[in-house]
Amino acid sequence: MDKMNMGKHISGKFNDELEAVRNRVLSMGGLVEKQLQDSLLAIQKGDIDLAEKVLTSDHKVNKLEVQIDEECVHIIAKRQPTASDLRLVIAIIKTIADLERIGDEAERIAKVAKESFSNDQQQLLVSLENLGQHVLSMLRNVLDAFARMDLESAYNVHQQDEQADRQYEALTRQLMTYMMEDSRSIPKIMNVLWSARSLERIGDRCQNIAEYIIFFVKGKDVRHVSPESMERTVMGKKD
Amino acid sequence: MDKMNMGKHISGKFNDELEAVRNRVLSMGGLVEKQLQDSLLAIQKGDIDLAEKVLTSDHKVNKLEVQIDEECVHIIAKRQPTASDLRLVIAIIKTIADLERIGDEAERIAKVAKESFSNDQQQLLVSLENLGQHVLSMLRNVLDAFARMDLESAYNVHQQDEQADRQYEALTRQLMTYMMEDSRSIPKIMNVLWSARSLERIGDRCQNIAEYIIFFVKGKDVRHVSPESMERTVMGKKD
Repeated sequence: MDKMNMGKHISGKFNDELEAVRNRVLSMGGLVEKQLQDSLLAIQKGDIDLAEKVLTSDHKVNKLEVQIDEECVHIIAKRQPTASDLRLVIAIIKTIADLERIGDEAERIAKVAKESFSNDQQQLLVSLENLGQHVLSMLRNVLDAFARMDLESAYNVHQQDEQADRQYEALTRQLMTYMMEDSRSIPKIMNVLWSARSLERIGDRCQNIAEYIIFFVKGKDVRHVSPESMERTVMGKKD
Repeated sequence: MDKMNMGKHISGKFNDELEAVRNRVLSMGGLVEKQLQDSLLAIQKGDIDLAEKVLTSDHKVNKLEVQIDEECVHIIAKRQPTASDLRLVIAIIKTIADLERIGDEAERIAKVAKESFSNDQQQLLVSLENLGQHVLSMLRNVLDAFARMDLESAYNVHQQDEQADRQYEALTRQLMTYMMEDSRSIPKIMNVLWSARSLERIGDRCQNIAEYIIFFVKGKDVRHVSPESMERTVMGKKD
């Protein structure tokens, strides 16, 4: 397993600054994870108050995004990092952009909790919940991989997105069939569909963050490459 | 009007490098603009070949994204830019991420061209086309603003997103009403709805790029601020 060795190239002060900004990213990640978890719980329990809480917690995440971004620019200007230090700062800048948008998606998901569903519509919510739990675990795992800059965990999250896509497609078919059978339910079921889409997008964004971790650890940009090429990069084999 | 004065702080060689990377961003923007334009044209004409072309042109955009990103990291490591030069590089890194995703959305939009629509469904496509043209003009304008780092144009694009949101909401209502009246059409109309959503997202991404331009010119992060605070920043008034 590849480990980060942050003390290797850099001065103590610089190390502290990088560590502080990394910790702030993890705080931001924790907030976003809580938003997603609460939005799923709000749907499951039909808890409107909890949904409202998700809808109003956005400003903290936004504030952290702007603050971390500023710190990164400051670090680049003052410390002039190169090699893996620079890759870390770039990976952080990109990660927080995805985290902020995961928070936005969580807000969209929470809105579903405000609807009331009939007994036979509850089964649709169960499928949504299943997708939600899978995506939530991807988010947790990628934040954990980020905390330890763990290549293997990042790669595992990347692989898990395929299952999220499959679950999303199955759910979409289920929802469309339901709408065709009960057209009065369309506006309500559409909200479930938007939530499903938001969850699928969160999965994509977790995949993005996994790619930034691989970029940091391996120094290679693995966006848009074939699964084989990515595997070679992660396993450390030659291209 | 604020103008960029790139020659002020930097060496000739550095200036050339920045200029080259800026030009590449504009090439990437041109490709993405063409993708969106073609996807709208493909829907309008029911041109499946053109839609296929959009669906397979993605790799050029992806390649440029990775290449520009590499150049930016290289410039930071080698030239150690500060102040407005650093802001430019950061603005570029963020802009290309949004451009790449606009390309992805254009692909989703192009898929609608593969469906065949009845005469009374054509009116829905007209509304989609209207939204599409508005968003395409936002994209053109923001690329133009980026080329000249023009604060006023960037701010205008930012303001235009409100109209895109309004058009999107009206179209969504129109599509849902149609589905409720003709439930067999749901799978087909859902594709139109996803396209509408993609267009709305492209509008958001143009707004993001406008914010990066304002960040570069004014040195102030205007994400998540109130409209009044943004206006003060753009107009150069004190907060």
